Amino acid sequence: MIVAFSVAPGGTGNTDGSVHDAVAAAVKIVRESGLPNRTSSMFTEIEGEWDEVMDVVKRATEAVGAYGSRVSLVLKADIRPGHTGELDGKIERLERAIDEL
Amino acid sequence: MIVAFSVAPGGTGNTDGSVHDAVAAAVKIVRESGLPNRTSSMFTEIEGEWDEVMDVVKRATEAVGAYGSRVSLVLKADIRPGHTGELDGKIERLERAIDEL
Amino acid sequence: MIVAFSVAPGGTGNTDGSVHDAVAAAVKIVRESGLPNRTSSMFTEIEGEWDEVMDVVKRATEAVGAYGSRVSLVLKADIRPGHTGELDGKIERLERAIDEL
Amino acid sequence: MIVAFSVAPGGTGNTDGSVHDAVAAAVKIVRESGLPNRTSSMFTEIEGEWDEVMDVVKRATEAVGAYGSRVSLVLKADIRPGHTGELDGKIERLERAIDEL
Repeated sequence: MIVAFSVAPGGTGNTDGSVHDAVAAAVKIVRESGLPNRTSSMFTEIEGEWDEVMDVVKRATEAVGAYGSRVSLVLKADIRPGHTGELDGKIERLERAIDEL
Repeated sequence: MIVAFSVAPGGTGNTDGSVHDAVAAAVKIVRESGLPNRTSSMFTEIEGEWDEVMDVVKRATEAVGAYGSRVSLVLKADIRPGHTGELDGKIERLERAIDEL
Repeated sequence: MIVAFSVAPGGTGNTDGSVHDAVAAAVKIVRESGLPNRTSSMFTEIEGEWDEVMDVVKRATEAVGAYGSRVSLVLKADIRPGHTGELDGKIERLERAIDEL
Repeated sequence: MIVAFSVAPGGTGNTDGSVHDAVAAAVKIVRESGLPNRTSSMFTEIEGEWDEVMDVVKRATEAVGAYGSRVSLVLKADIRPGHTGELDGKIERLERAIDEL
């Protein structure tokens, strides 16, 4: 499965809306997990089995909790038994399909 | 924490887009969990601690997997330590705030 | 189509994570729109055509912008041509399907 | 603002869960829009003003409608007045913050 997730603190007390310190703590945990992952401007994607992926998301969410009084988590998962290497595989199929349009 | 989640099968083979059988299997698991929950037309909400809520979401997602070759899960969590009874509590604060506008 | 959306301000300067004033301003706009709608603890659902629904979501999002320096919007839409009355219709089909499990 | 969105058809009649043809049609519209954009394995991100971004999302969603009887759209927006170039800007701030942890 691939999980794309975004986690952000609330109640930080700041007025400029910056959350990069909190997000950095979360992404650091993802990168240290050893699971295939990629971070864009809106989501971090991780590939693996449910238990290992969700353990990383849990620890990343807990890390963000230190930066505010509330945490918001948004997650989208694509679960497809028998498929691996999909962080790149899905994009490759997509690019071929665009070429064929 | 409160989790709102939506889970649906892909690759069902049908052409009318119906997914209520699969969603029913998921919601049944939620209701049998004993955790506070509520289902709307788009999401099912569950309140509890991370491990117990995510265990229910995992089993609900697995149940949906029987209805197709792929499963899509969308989840939003609001984690606020020290707050419980928030399925109703959040709505009550909201309604009061609307009255005061 | 049905849209479920959640909108919240960031950079509010508060440390308790409260956002009910901002959310109240958004929900008030939804209710005054005249479109079928329902608010749960996590999302507000609206039913209608794309342009009318998205106009309401845009104005609700703008209203929340007054409460902080940044706005986060999460939206899930279910678009099914030929279906209306689905805020209740989807739940009725779901409940029947649960009864038949 | 940055919008990350994912759109997929339902009721396609296939049993393997493939949706890359439909997603290709959506991403093609995004790329032809001229707005800054990036596609990962789970979401396509677009940067611009509300009306121009939502017009692209609407047309991408309509294109996907041709591939099935139902369309599911998931969207997350980060609206931050006065910030542009954020598809890269957010990642650069994030990487610096990770280096400083």
